Amino acid sequence: MTTLLLKLGGSVITDKDEPETVDEDALEAAAASLGAVDFDRLVVVHGGGSFGHHHASAHGVSRTDGSTDAGAVRDIHGAMCELNDAVVDALADEGVPAVPVHPFSAAYRSDDGHLVHPTTQLAAMLDQGWVPVLHGDVVTHDDAGATILSGDEIIVALAGNLGASRIGLCSTVPGVLDDDGDVVPEITAYEEVADALGESESTDVTGGMAAKVETLLALDSDSYIFGPGDLDAFLAGEAAGTHVRT
Amino acid sequence: MTTLLLKLGGSVITDKDEPETVDEDALEAAAASLGAVDFDRLVVVHGGGSFGHHHASAHGVSRTDGSTDAGAVRDIHGAMCELNDAVVDALADEGVPAVPVHPFSAAYRSDDGHLVHPTTQLAAMLDQGWVPVLHGDVVTHDDAGATILSGDEIIVALAGNLGASRIGLCSTVPGVLDDDGDVVPEITAYEEVADALGESESTDVTGGMAAKVETLLALDSDSYIFGPGDLDAFLAGEAAGTHVRT
Repeated sequence: MTTLLLKLGGSVITDKDEPETVDEDALEAAAASLGAVDFDRLVVVHGGGSFGHHHASAHGVSRTDGSTDAGAVRDIHGAMCELNDAVVDALADEGVPAVPVHPFSAAYRSDDGHLVHPTTQLAAMLDQGWVPVLHGDVVTHDDAGATILSGDEIIVALAGNLGASRIGLCSTVPGVLDDDGDVVPEITAYEEVADALGESESTDVTGGMAAKVETLLALDSDSYIFGPGDLDAFLAGEAAGTHVRT
Repeated sequence: MTTLLLKLGGSVITDKDEPETVDEDALEAAAASLGAVDFDRLVVVHGGGSFGHHHASAHGVSRTDGSTDAGAVRDIHGAMCELNDAVVDALADEGVPAVPVHPFSAAYRSDDGHLVHPTTQLAAMLDQGWVPVLHGDVVTHDDAGATILSGDEIIVALAGNLGASRIGLCSTVPGVLDDDGDVVPEITAYEEVADALGESESTDVTGGMAAKVETLLALDSDSYIFGPGDLDAFLAGEAAGTHVRT
């Protein structure tokens, strides 16, 4: 039994520079890849792209700076649910048994920032053959109101409890790039790429590549960072982008 | 610190005989009542009315008969989320710091039908001063696909862990009626009203008044069953409809 965790970056499925705009072609292509593959168990987590980030910036909400304004929660969460609807619909159109899961409804952060995301309900969904589709979201943060919960954080929270076999982070770059702009095929320690990792472009309140690599190195499962062109390879269990070996 | 749990029946806020139709006047009136009252902690749970029940019937899904079809989940859940959006928006318009919570994202049922609904994330929301607004929904049911989760069941699942002070079930009838059609002011045991309780009208996959009374008698908190005309009284801590004393 293989359990795949796939993060679809917000930059892949939205036009990150245009507020609340789905990149229909890219989303359909990703959905077609998922619809064409046989899998045992699959969880999809997508990022916010142009849906969540602009609202988060407007309300001054980040992973560490919270807001107690229920209106901020409704705005950011509502935009993310709209994107989630689009992703679930696209997957359903390709025959994927996708069901929507909204992290704000289930998760919370303790006052030290530790994320608690229940997974028993997700395991029950996987047992039915469904594909839970989660998303970057706001999350209730003890003593801080709501803070941003990134898709990467969700992957980390789920990986251990769901027994992930392979984790894929599909973003708009083909992998972690070295100083010459070439994809680093394998990373086993952060120091190997610390000098080469640059800053994320556009408004991204949830951290860029450096945070991604550090996050993945902390897991028990092997991960792959790749671009949309390698999605089929990842799903087929082949080499894809940068292999983060743990 | 008073914690109120309020169920707004689907029949109160929708036209139960017209598919997916909000009763705007009734919803606005209920929202205005909530907006006008000072409360410490408040959780709102609403039923499905004409949004959930028709979809549930069409897919043959009930509290005990499940479906493994992800499309059934998406249809029923999607309709309920649409109603939830309307309720949250109406409350927000009246200044209530409402935030949406979708039970399918958090809860599951074990194969013996026992419901597990986490409450720590809800307690964290209440600590921020927010009003979580939950809804009747589908829920993943081990070995059965998805079954219906009624608003009444959610109330039961939350009451103990959230330390409910008072529970209110606002439906379209003014309380539990005796054989003469008069409101029974107080119930302390099911036998007192067993003869008088009739069947629910319209399509209602989640049980009628008999199930409601049995459910409330099983709780540690006192409950009130009342019509929309008594909502202000309930919120003010006054007598409202039928008092189910436990």
